[in-house]
Amino acid sequence: MSDDALLVAAARSPVARLATIAASGAVDLVPITFALTASTIVTAVDHKPKKTRRLRRLDNIAREPRVTVLIDHYDDDWASLLWVRLRGRAVVVDDGPRFDGAIAQLVAKYPNHYAAIAPEGPVIQIDITDVRIWRSS
Amino acid sequence: MSDDALLVAAARSPVARLATIAASGAVDLVPITFALTASTIVTAVDHKPKKTRRLRRLDNIAREPRVTVLIDHYDDDWASLLWVRLRGRAVVVDDGPRFDGAIAQLVAKYPNHYAAIAPEGPVIQIDITDVRIWRSS
Repeated sequence: MSDDALLVAAARSPVARLATIAASGAVDLVPITFALTASTIVTAVDHKPKKTRRLRRLDNIAREPRVTVLIDHYDDDWASLLWVRLRGRAVVVDDGPRFDGAIAQLVAKYPNHYAAIAPEGPVIQIDITDVRIWRSS
Repeated sequence: MSDDALLVAAARSPVARLATIAASGAVDLVPITFALTASTIVTAVDHKPKKTRRLRRLDNIAREPRVTVLIDHYDDDWASLLWVRLRGRAVVVDDGPRFDGAIAQLVAKYPNHYAAIAPEGPVIQIDITDVRIWRSS
């Protein structure tokens, strides 16, 4: 598979993992639903979480916008393992055209989940600065 | 599912994600195979990687032993989403009883992959200091 084909496949993965850095210096790591284009990854808070939890991930980004996202494919055949690691600068977007565009991408990718009720936001938009692809074979 | 049952299920997951912090301050994030007990997570370098890659992950731990591991379960039914995030202090173990014990755990968990050729190492042993469980429902 070419790198481009691999990125297209990675974009179809339903889940990725987002790493941000907490005030303590520890890494906060959570699974995310996402939409990936050539230059950005977007994800959204999709329902009202607890206030403390909401603030934490977004606070991390406000303090340190450099984030890391991993999309990997596990297979019992370890010759088929692969992963894509994306680095970028994250911004939190609460409304406006970038917000609407990100929500539209997420609704298009997850129609069964978001068509009836679009994610409320905010949106995290990550402008990709670095892509690393690894495959076992 | 109780928290204990959930941790047992998480331990059976074939893959987790390990976050370490690079010298640049960015997060290095990779999928790992692992074995989880009540107090530790172990993972191993299982074949000779490129020297530069080998040094990087292990160098990160030497500089900042606080690491984060995420084990998550994705399901198209978003009411079934769950994840376990483990924090701990990592040490790199090259040989001795802890090394042998970790390799034995990994061979027991992945018999199809490791029974014929055990991972060469080194082992990363993470002493768990914090467990957070999240579930959507």
